[in-house]
Amino acid sequence: MEKILITGAQGFIGRHLSKYLNSLGYKITGIGHGFWTEREWKSWGLSEWYEMDIALASLVAHGNNPYAIFHCAGSGSVGFSVDNPMQDFERTVVSTINVLEYMRTLSRDSILIYPSSAAVYGISEELPITENAKSNPTSPYGHHKKIAEDLCLSYGRTYGLSIGIVRLFSVYGIELRKQLLWDSCLKSINGSTEFFGTGAETRDWINVKDVVRLMHKLISVADTNVRIINGGTGSAVKTSEVISYLFRRLNNKENLVFNGKTRKGDPQHYLADISAATSIGWHPEVSWRDGIDEYVDWFVSLK
Amino acid sequence: MEKILITGAQGFIGRHLSKYLNSLGYKITGIGHGFWTEREWKSWGLSEWYEMDIALASLVAHGNNPYAIFHCAGSGSVGFSVDNPMQDFERTVVSTINVLEYMRTLSRDSILIYPSSAAVYGISEELPITENAKSNPTSPYGHHKKIAEDLCLSYGRTYGLSIGIVRLFSVYGIELRKQLLWDSCLKSINGSTEFFGTGAETRDWINVKDVVRLMHKLISVADTNVRIINGGTGSAVKTSEVISYLFRRLNNKENLVFNGKTRKGDPQHYLADISAATSIGWHPEVSWRDGIDEYVDWFVSLK
Repeated sequence: MEKILITGAQGFIGRHLSKYLNSLGYKITGIGHGFWTEREWKSWGLSEWYEMDIALASLVAHGNNPYAIFHCAGSGSVGFSVDNPMQDFERTVVSTINVLEYMRTLSRDSILIYPSSAAVYGISEELPITENAKSNPTSPYGHHKKIAEDLCLSYGRTYGLSIGIVRLFSVYGIELRKQLLWDSCLKSINGSTEFFGTGAETRDWINVKDVVRLMHKLISVADTNVRIINGGTGSAVKTSEVISYLFRRLNNKENLVFNGKTRKGDPQHYLADISAATSIGWHPEVSWRDGIDEYVDWFVSLK
Repeated sequence: MEKILITGAQGFIGRHLSKYLNSLGYKITGIGHGFWTEREWKSWGLSEWYEMDIALASLVAHGNNPYAIFHCAGSGSVGFSVDNPMQDFERTVVSTINVLEYMRTLSRDSILIYPSSAAVYGISEELPITENAKSNPTSPYGHHKKIAEDLCLSYGRTYGLSIGIVRLFSVYGIELRKQLLWDSCLKSINGSTEFFGTGAETRDWINVKDVVRLMHKLISVADTNVRIINGGTGSAVKTSEVISYLFRRLNNKENLVFNGKTRKGDPQHYLADISAATSIGWHPEVSWRDGIDEYVDWFVSLK
């Protein structure tokens, strides 16, 4: 069984990725933060779990020359990055150079797959957004993701490391206990109907199941020039439509109220051009309505 | 007297900057690596010198809310960056986020001036190179300088810090004990006439005296959107012409031999568009021949 290392394996994308790659026959080692029991991490497909920093020493000790490294560790919140830019930098940027340095010095044949973010584009003038669009991040989170990408370029080109990057749009799915769908479920059971924004914002929602298939597919096109591919579905849905659908699925018939506010630096519209992703044989398979059905069923099952 | 903090004050640009700013009436605090005696650092215009890392703790202890910070600390060698990418990252990138974090938390009214490098452009398709040219670095050094710039953008825009960046082309001047002019002087006294390259490469040579005037001028246009300005002279000189002139000044009549080799990622030509710099009232004053005259006189005086 080929070995795969997943940093941040306890996180939302990390755990789904672990389960998927294990189902394909890979042996998964996870490293990162977050407590979970052995029974839990085994149920997500991991053979080994090390709760520690993504430091060079941890990688040297437990990296074990993997076939591929999926570097899912890193910050995942724009708000956190604004309040704590230095910690966000350490989680996202320093962890990435540690992974790259581990590869350069001890594991040059490993393939690195890095989940970046559409936040590297910032506010884009043209939709859909292609991979060549200008990078103009509007938060430390977006800047740090772009910097982590640039470190991948630097190491890939200078030292001949094979790397693939996926810029993820609005990823959702079961186990995601934050962001719009989670907040909407909580509001619904708490009897709240007020939401931030105008409701007319659009996002390209991509189910985590489609994300992990795309990330696995990236292995085949990773190279030393660093392949960068958008991870979205190529279609966008209004926030009001998403929440309305979710409310109906929860049998909530209240009307939504949007406060009309906007956040500086928060794009009104996001939409991925996915021709690069489809050109490597990947297609999104989960419709947003099916994805929300599953999310709501999972949420209801939690109590 | 207004206080100015110079990181890397013992370095080539740092010491010239210190002397110049002190001559304008500023009180200079220096921090960084390198040993020099109190007599030496005082002769370069410093009132205080702290030999230590550009760590947050050092800045908190000795920063002292300066009017401006000139962040000259950082790596200065492409070759070093290729051999030691992690250390280059720490010197250039981590030192920069430490300075920015110090400003964000304790010294928001300070103005930051950052000397970046034309290496952020990499190999440019069009000459002269404008500030809007695509960034395509060809070494970890160039990538790390670009990353340090991006951190400045992130902090400037997110936290309202005033910042100016100058992208320096081929800086030279007395006290520079490495690179082409230094090596050429050494070769001349050692009887060597062989040089790397074709001799037809061109560089935009800017004297350090012009550099420090430009960096001081940048204070007036630094802003939270981060002003980026090329630091060059707007004219380029062939390497063979530079070395021939230097050899003649050393009364060396030997013919030069170029080995015809090229380094991957080393641009054949560099030339700055300096309209942005001249638009703020700065002009280069030292011709390259006058600059080499002074350099040779300094070199001869060293023995």
